[in-house]
Amino acid sequence: MTDPLDTRDRRPGGRTARVRAQVLDAVRAELAERGHEGLTMEGVATRAGVHRATVYRRWHDVGGLLADVIDAAGEIDWQPPDTGSLLGDLTALNQEIQESLVVRPSLAVALMAASFHSAQAARAQTQLWTDRYAQCEVLVERAVERGELAAPHTDPRGLLIAATAPLYHQLVLLRADPDPRLPQRAAEAAVLAAGAGAFRLRRGESA
Amino acid sequence: MTDPLDTRDRRPGGRTARVRAQVLDAVRAELAERGHEGLTMEGVATRAGVHRATVYRRWHDVGGLLADVIDAAGEIDWQPPDTGSLLGDLTALNQEIQESLVVRPSLAVALMAASFHSAQAARAQTQLWTDRYAQCEVLVERAVERGELAAPHTDPRGLLIAATAPLYHQLVLLRADPDPRLPQRAAEAAVLAAGAGAFRLRRGESA
Repeated sequence: MTDPLDTRDRRPGGRTARVRAQVLDAVRAELAERGHEGLTMEGVATRAGVHRATVYRRWHDVGGLLADVIDAAGEIDWQPPDTGSLLGDLTALNQEIQESLVVRPSLAVALMAASFHSAQAARAQTQLWTDRYAQCEVLVERAVERGELAAPHTDPRGLLIAATAPLYHQLVLLRADPDPRLPQRAAEAAVLAAGAGAFRLRRGESA
Repeated sequence: MTDPLDTRDRRPGGRTARVRAQVLDAVRAELAERGHEGLTMEGVATRAGVHRATVYRRWHDVGGLLADVIDAAGEIDWQPPDTGSLLGDLTALNQEIQESLVVRPSLAVALMAASFHSAQAARAQTQLWTDRYAQCEVLVERAVERGELAAPHTDPRGLLIAATAPLYHQLVLLRADPDPRLPQRAAEAAVLAAGAGAFRLRRGESA
């Protein structure tokens, strides 16, 4: 969409980056206040103090704004926890997830809700999650290196999904009250299952 | 809202039941065709061939229609699987869940999406899930009776959430392609975790 060789105003801190930061801040604030149903190009432009024409030209529509907020989350230098044990790492990861889902307003929940209504937001969301789960595979690799898991046949993504899915299911879909014990319990169940032979890749099978 | 002693036209198969069936069929069809964003009182009344005034009087708004569709799902005489083993039961349950989530259009997914936008639909959804998980606790009880699980300290809901959550997470939130092996794998991980001591209630703790 833009010429990658045209670096005018595209250096970090340049005008393009500044406008993007202002607009995405405005999207997050509008999402928090009104939910995605109240999100409009006009509302975002006004809040950001940016010309409407600029917002339309660069983001096209609300789906474009949502997708870019999600993409921006993926650009943060996030690192998975490194506590020294698989159980500790998965518990810390789950605590981070639980915090992001129970904070009010929750940007994470607003973006999940929005992704049911915008194919573009849904694609960005799926990409972000794919990247984050891929980043977290190192937790499983480290556990194998430490001898906590039988190498090399564990499906890391299967284990990570098992550890984290109960958080999303309870808090986002079932709308249960947050349980401070859940991050550790869900992590523990996944670690015990792995130790008992779950998530093994069968011969010739890929994850 | 209605007088429980007034049974005119409220007998099964009476006019009230017929109108409800027509209206809820119309809601399901509209959801399937247009998603909940295209759901309107007028569209439902027209499709059902029922006076708009009747639809407004009885269901008030779109949230009321959504909640009643979910309530109606809860009135079906659903029984959890009974295959003779915990792994078999949880696998069969997961297969049922997977089918409901991957069918296109999926009423289950449309209702989950809608529940992000209607507090009334969200409450109905939470109630339905609470009831269904409570019904499924019998799977865990039977497993304890058969000696498959150490009695009586397993948290049945924790085990059931662990077994089923990966299906919802993968198919609804992560939008992964359906994996025909997932129902059994997720069930197996939960059973192995339980066998290894996960989901144990601590002394003095309730589920």
